[in-house]
Amino acid sequence: MNPSRRSAGRYLPSAPVSLPDRRWPSRTVTTAPRWLSTDLRDGNQSLANPMSPARKLAMFRLLVEMGYQEIEVGFPVASQDDHDFVRLLIEDDLIPDDVCITVLTQARDELIRRTVESLAGAPRARIHIYNATSPLFRRVVFGMTRAECLDLAVQGTRLMMKYADRTLAGTDLRYQYSPELFNDTELEFSLEVCEAVMDVWQPETDRPIILNFPTTVERTMPNVFADQIEWLDRNLSRREHVCLSVHPHNDRGTGVASAELATLAGAQRIEGCLFGNGERAGNVCLVTLGLNLYTQGIDPGIDFSDINRIRRTVEYCNELPVHPRHPYGGDLAYTAFSGSHQDAIKKGFDERARAAMAIGASVDDLPWEVPYLPLDPEDVGRTYETVVRINSQSGKGGVAYVLASRHGMLLPRDLQLEFAAVVQAQADAAGAEISPARIGELFLQEYVVQRPLSVPLRFRDMVDTELHVGGGGFTVGAARADAVEQIRTTMLSWGIDVRAVHRTGVGAVSERDDVVVYAECRLGTRTVWGVGIDAGPDTAAFAAVRAALSRALRSGTALETVGDLDAPVMHPAPPLLRPVLAGAAGLDLAGTVGLDRAG
Amino acid sequence: MNPSRRSAGRYLPSAPVSLPDRRWPSRTVTTAPRWLSTDLRDGNQSLANPMSPARKLAMFRLLVEMGYQEIEVGFPVASQDDHDFVRLLIEDDLIPDDVCITVLTQARDELIRRTVESLAGAPRARIHIYNATSPLFRRVVFGMTRAECLDLAVQGTRLMMKYADRTLAGTDLRYQYSPELFNDTELEFSLEVCEAVMDVWQPETDRPIILNFPTTVERTMPNVFADQIEWLDRNLSRREHVCLSVHPHNDRGTGVASAELATLAGAQRIEGCLFGNGERAGNVCLVTLGLNLYTQGIDPGIDFSDINRIRRTVEYCNELPVHPRHPYGGDLAYTAFSGSHQDAIKKGFDERARAAMAIGASVDDLPWEVPYLPLDPEDVGRTYETVVRINSQSGKGGVAYVLASRHGMLLPRDLQLEFAAVVQAQADAAGAEISPARIGELFLQEYVVQRPLSVPLRFRDMVDTELHVGGGGFTVGAARADAVEQIRTTMLSWGIDVRAVHRTGVGAVSERDDVVVYAECRLGTRTVWGVGIDAGPDTAAFAAVRAALSRALRSGTALETVGDLDAPVMHPAPPLLRPVLAGAAGLDLAGTVGLDRAG
Repeated sequence: MNPSRRSAGRYLPSAPVSLPDRRWPSRTVTTAPRWLSTDLRDGNQSLANPMSPARKLAMFRLLVEMGYQEIEVGFPVASQDDHDFVRLLIEDDLIPDDVCITVLTQARDELIRRTVESLAGAPRARIHIYNATSPLFRRVVFGMTRAECLDLAVQGTRLMMKYADRTLAGTDLRYQYSPELFNDTELEFSLEVCEAVMDVWQPETDRPIILNFPTTVERTMPNVFADQIEWLDRNLSRREHVCLSVHPHNDRGTGVASAELATLAGAQRIEGCLFGNGERAGNVCLVTLGLNLYTQGIDPGIDFSDINRIRRTVEYCNELPVHPRHPYGGDLAYTAFSGSHQDAIKKGFDERARAAMAIGASVDDLPWEVPYLPLDPEDVGRTYETVVRINSQSGKGGVAYVLASRHGMLLPRDLQLEFAAVVQAQADAAGAEISPARIGELFLQEYVVQRPLSVPLRFRDMVDTELHVGGGGFTVGAARADAVEQIRTTMLSWGIDVRAVHRTGVGAVSERDDVVVYAECRLGTRTVWGVGIDAGPDTAAFAAVRAALSRALRSGTALETVGDLDAPVMHPAPPLLRPVLAGAAGLDLAGTVGLDRAG
Repeated sequence: MNPSRRSAGRYLPSAPVSLPDRRWPSRTVTTAPRWLSTDLRDGNQSLANPMSPARKLAMFRLLVEMGYQEIEVGFPVASQDDHDFVRLLIEDDLIPDDVCITVLTQARDELIRRTVESLAGAPRARIHIYNATSPLFRRVVFGMTRAECLDLAVQGTRLMMKYADRTLAGTDLRYQYSPELFNDTELEFSLEVCEAVMDVWQPETDRPIILNFPTTVERTMPNVFADQIEWLDRNLSRREHVCLSVHPHNDRGTGVASAELATLAGAQRIEGCLFGNGERAGNVCLVTLGLNLYTQGIDPGIDFSDINRIRRTVEYCNELPVHPRHPYGGDLAYTAFSGSHQDAIKKGFDERARAAMAIGASVDDLPWEVPYLPLDPEDVGRTYETVVRINSQSGKGGVAYVLASRHGMLLPRDLQLEFAAVVQAQADAAGAEISPARIGELFLQEYVVQRPLSVPLRFRDMVDTELHVGGGGFTVGAARADAVEQIRTTMLSWGIDVRAVHRTGVGAVSERDDVVVYAECRLGTRTVWGVGIDAGPDTAAFAAVRAALSRALRSGTALETVGDLDAPVMHPAPPLLRPVLAGAAGLDLAGTVGLDRAG
């Protein structure tokens, strides 16, 4: 870095508000505010490539579908495109009955006239007039006194009403006024302008007014903004006919907090954009605000149940990506790579399953409580697959989670530990993430696929036998216990103690309702695992034992222990593994049949 | 969207803190907190592709260079890579004297022993022990009582001290403890654990303790977090020997606000990552926090003067992009496309220049006050070129700003208006942004480049003449006024009233210290502009007039007015336009020489 002659001394801190008896810090939010989407206005004007008519329509339809009932659709006199879009919405009757569009204009005669005219034929609409009220803008941009600035707002309101009387007789016309740069404007001047505007509009029960307070450029901490809003909330006259609205930007990265604290302070309505699009660092993010309410148990009134689709549409319309770490909607928003996080998440899901079973309920009826997940990803249409992702930072919990959720295999804890090391070694070597599919492949390669044995090994009569497994294992049928015992006894005589755990119904791994058998074989002091997958528990178990033996022999150390292997082996039918897994792994599964038929 | 059977009812709101006499909302920030970067820890563990040793080293060096004095470098016992990196830093003596590294470990005997050993030979270091203290984790993840959970922290601290006594005699060892999931833990239990840990460590003036309170998963509004921190601030014993630290995550998009409000509430130190990397929605962003202080007039103690370089390094290390709308660092963080915004920005810059000239100061000595720009982009090494970008939403202010800042041309207001319409038509047609270079090209094509006239036109004696321009224009030398008057009179006799404004020193446009002349010619009721660029003001002015005439004749309407054009034209030397502009525009400037020599 170059030493800079510049310093923070050139910046003036924003003035705090004197409000020692402020009440907002003691309040909690209990209901959702009204929302206005300005994606088609603030959002669109901040794009390098503004939306085409098709993109505008896609955004409008998305917003309607999600449930937004107030949508700012443009600045008709600033852009022919905006004007044409407003006309399209009206003339093609695209505005549902429960939706009110808003159009924006500056407080200037000619602009107001043409804005009003752009709404001709609309069943209902809101005109939103703004002018900049801050001292900097009055002085530098407009060269105006306070009185002239106030007069602009008053005259604008009056002109709007005059033109509307002429042109919009059949329209249910609503009104919104914003003192722009509110957060840089003297509080009492903002109030003075708003009161003067209300004196013209004369809000009543059947003709309320929206007074909207934009932090056009976010400059203050969110608690200061909340103080400003509470001050207004206390001092505005005709309060019952005013909808107090805020319009936070995000230049300090505190737009969401500013909106939330403002609602504690009396704000009843929030203007923002999906995924925080908008000029510079964006408008406040409506997705984050909505789902923040949701995770506090409050219905936001907006449908976020397919957040991936929402995101795709927004990315199409804005031609801007949603960041992987964007709350709730980013690719990584629910993802844990860390081993300890994954372990806790897995325990959380297991505990939920147990708790639901204990009371005979669905897990969806339980309160949401899973470590490291502020929101159930399924509530927004995200799968659990994206929750746990595996790289060199991950551990047994994550690997076991992937095998269970993606591949339907519930590994014994010791096998989890052993296989996690296999995965970690791969992740270290690759220096990259290991996909769930690749984890399945690694598992098959390591534990299931049987390589040629260096010694012949065959059991007779497998068709009529089954494997009885010790160590708390399973028995399939007493009728054939003799044959199983024979196998086990034979193996024991070689110093191999076969133990196994199993699980049925692994639809994710095989296309049939197969059995997975995890054979834990002790060879002297060493434990070697093998896994078998097959329709029959006996053939699966035998395949598991044989896989373990194959692995032991491959590693070399087992050979001394195993001793004289003259008993012949009959290989079970190969597991019907999912083609996708087998194909991806490059495994020639057919090749495992009869590998050691010769004996 | 599919109607969802899921609802917000499954989520429990976080419990508020009873602190009616809270003091933080009335406070303001006056100094920077201590910072800890956990980019190499929390940041790294959240990457799909964790950092290679080279990327780790690049990140460490960047952090040191920026001025971070506390850097968490890894979790040595969780990853061989982390361990090796800690050893590299120590053995290669890469830790500056004013920097203290931190290593993280869980509170388990074997892990603590190996963590302590990983620090052997370090001149100074901090060990950071954590354990999860929240009810959910005690119950579901660890199956522990409160007493067992507390004991884990106490024993961990004791073991760490024991192993350090053995292994780290020469190390200035410092200590940090975190009750993980602090924001989900009963407040008084967090306090109880911290007090018990302090009973073991016995903090004193020369051996303080950092107690760090992570919002491991952000679940509460930032004001609730501030209440929690103020409660701790009031209730912790040995407060003068405690550094109260916070570690906010960003799951609700309010990490920055949580950190800021926490500093009002008594937090003295903030842990985070550059550009908000970190698990899920990230750790709190240290860049945003630092520059938020800066724009409040408070020196953050961190060097952000080359934010592009910081961003490039972070993107290289994390293999994740910084979003275009990221506060302060994103590509669009200072950009205005909107016409009214651009207009205000231009007026703001103009006003600063005037104000500085008026008091004989540099603009850099003035307080920063420019519309729509919370920070002077030059303070972080960004150019003004990125501030104003042009598309169909833009207007005269933006176009004029680009021509002035990028091409050194200060257009008269009426010409701004006229040319803005040319640019807007192009932007509409292209449906895309128009680059500054393209705007320069458009301007040259429209006003400077002279096409063949359909009628011959020549002035004699140009070598000895100069153009006297009316309407407040300029005069180069009285000695040659006759010739100029002759031209002007001649043109007036055709109904053409030549007026011009000019500016010298357009290094950005031409390679010489050229003059730009803007000729405003009235033909009857119509105004036609032409622009000339040349080393000599007389030839530039003549070129400008001729360009205007050329444009008028091209458009057809002017011909009737111009009347009988029998006076021959002598073409001036072609403007020495910057090859880059000319080349990009595909203009054959040489071809404009002598276009109409024949007469």
